[in-house]
Amino acid sequence: MKITRMHGAGGKVMQNLIGDVILGSLTNTQVNGGIGLQDLDDGSTIPIGDNEIVFTVDGHTVDPIFFKGGDIGRISVCGTVNDLSVMGAKPLALSMSFVLPEGFDIDKLKEIMDSINKACEEAGVAVITGDTKVSNVSDIIISSAGIGIVEKGKAVRDKGMKEGDSIIVTGNLAEHGLTILLSREGFDLESNLKSDVAPVNGLIQSVLNEGITINAMKDPTRGGLADSLNEMAEKSGLGITLQEDQIPLSEEVNFISEALGIDPLTVANEGKVVMAIPKKDAEKALEIIKNHPLGKNAKIVGEVTSEHKGVIMETLVGRRVVDTPIGDPIPRVC
Amino acid sequence: MKITRMHGAGGKVMQNLIGDVILGSLTNTQVNGGIGLQDLDDGSTIPIGDNEIVFTVDGHTVDPIFFKGGDIGRISVCGTVNDLSVMGAKPLALSMSFVLPEGFDIDKLKEIMDSINKACEEAGVAVITGDTKVSNVSDIIISSAGIGIVEKGKAVRDKGMKEGDSIIVTGNLAEHGLTILLSREGFDLESNLKSDVAPVNGLIQSVLNEGITINAMKDPTRGGLADSLNEMAEKSGLGITLQEDQIPLSEEVNFISEALGIDPLTVANEGKVVMAIPKKDAEKALEIIKNHPLGKNAKIVGEVTSEHKGVIMETLVGRRVVDTPIGDPIPRVC
Repeated sequence: MKITRMHGAGGKVMQNLIGDVILGSLTNTQVNGGIGLQDLDDGSTIPIGDNEIVFTVDGHTVDPIFFKGGDIGRISVCGTVNDLSVMGAKPLALSMSFVLPEGFDIDKLKEIMDSINKACEEAGVAVITGDTKVSNVSDIIISSAGIGIVEKGKAVRDKGMKEGDSIIVTGNLAEHGLTILLSREGFDLESNLKSDVAPVNGLIQSVLNEGITINAMKDPTRGGLADSLNEMAEKSGLGITLQEDQIPLSEEVNFISEALGIDPLTVANEGKVVMAIPKKDAEKALEIIKNHPLGKNAKIVGEVTSEHKGVIMETLVGRRVVDTPIGDPIPRVC
Repeated sequence: MKITRMHGAGGKVMQNLIGDVILGSLTNTQVNGGIGLQDLDDGSTIPIGDNEIVFTVDGHTVDPIFFKGGDIGRISVCGTVNDLSVMGAKPLALSMSFVLPEGFDIDKLKEIMDSINKACEEAGVAVITGDTKVSNVSDIIISSAGIGIVEKGKAVRDKGMKEGDSIIVTGNLAEHGLTILLSREGFDLESNLKSDVAPVNGLIQSVLNEGITINAMKDPTRGGLADSLNEMAEKSGLGITLQEDQIPLSEEVNFISEALGIDPLTVANEGKVVMAIPKKDAEKALEIIKNHPLGKNAKIVGEVTSEHKGVIMETLVGRRVVDTPIGDPIPRVC
């Protein structure tokens, strides 16, 4: 069997590859009883003393490397910072491993480095180790691993949501993935759409600092909100009921999604968070989030239930299942 | 200006790129006063409580991906384990970020995963987090970051060697790089040569466990022993005098190096260590190292001096300067 694009797209095909080939081959996947690879969370942990070191990695191969709202440098910082942040950790340090094609313009590399630096300053993290290789690649690839820290036992898990929890989404969805798709497919739409790529650690800390418990949390990147919610539902053994009219989507995203025949719930975000929060604290949490510059379009979009499994959305015309996407969304009009 | 192969080859061209473009762009390069990116050591550290977390990363793009003695999977574990080990750290956990070409054979990926698993078991480390992407690359790329731990203040630095220290090399040099070169260039030599790729943490711990101080240590990978010794000399402000007749080289490596017109001191190793050890402990350290399966050809190859800078080698016909290589060794007969 051969690798296809679907194996790297988030969704079920990738999950099967990871489960069968990668996890299936490895004997040692956790340290000191911490969260391990087999938990398939946004990061893993190493308990040391009173703390847990949180560790995560992301490979970045975005095409095009410069796009409205960001570039591969900004994504390589934010993607890793955000994976640490949704574990409830304080991000501390990143590693950056660059693979460059021969002939790559050093001025472009400088531009990417400036973008990395700006994102690191926003997030308050440092790049403390790195590597560069030159190889047969069509464009620059950046793999960024990250280290964060959280008090022992306080890591926020994908699986932690409880019956009755409110589901909060911190802002308008699908902006990153649609921006990339439009520019990759060469659609010359007059559009104000830009990627939402941003570090979310400050937004999350603003909630945690008020003593609010976040029972479960993810950043809905590849596979979009649909993928994240299904993962949270499956891991907790519970279900989620969404209210379609509460899902934050800009008019522009609605218009473009319909024009392209794409479900915006399956499209990647790079600066959003989905949280399960005890109902009694949900309104307070929403208010805190809406006061943060990255959270002004936040909404309570649904509720955790034991009455069904998976994710079901109540719409104007009835209920529909929101399933885990198979792979990347493909415009039906192309 | 454009990126060339030399920018990824170790040596001076790469050092300039890292210094000017990468370090030059970054404001935050260290955490809590630990060892940072600007120190350009084999890893960096984050002081936490009584310990320092050691963090390092390597991108692996080896061509061919399977070779005598190992494959890209084994290298991706050992390269990172060894960078942690030469900082004096106990390696704990790895991240693995895979970039796969479309059409890559999943059976090959399984073979690489088995090799990763075997190397992890040898080194006693776990793969706790990972990522997979599918992109326009000519072959699989693996970026592996690693976390280790060392008692606060006990990290072994590149810069730590002191006048009079003995320089120990733990075994025969140049076997990895020559194996790759022979197979890449299609030389069909009848050869027993194979890569030395192995995790060196056990070997190093066997020395440290006897209470011997290692003043400075590196693993001579890209750029070979010549690059490592020059870096150690420059960072300490001292010089090294080598004895050519003490440098451990197999007959086969000597023969092939001469045939190809390559200096074996500039060729990469993946399972060797160079240490600066106080002269009084050097013989004891050598004996411990020689008793380890990976150290049986270890030698004391030279001495640290304040009488000159850089690296000078005493040969049968006089003294010669051993300089930092510019880039990868290129066979002069091709």
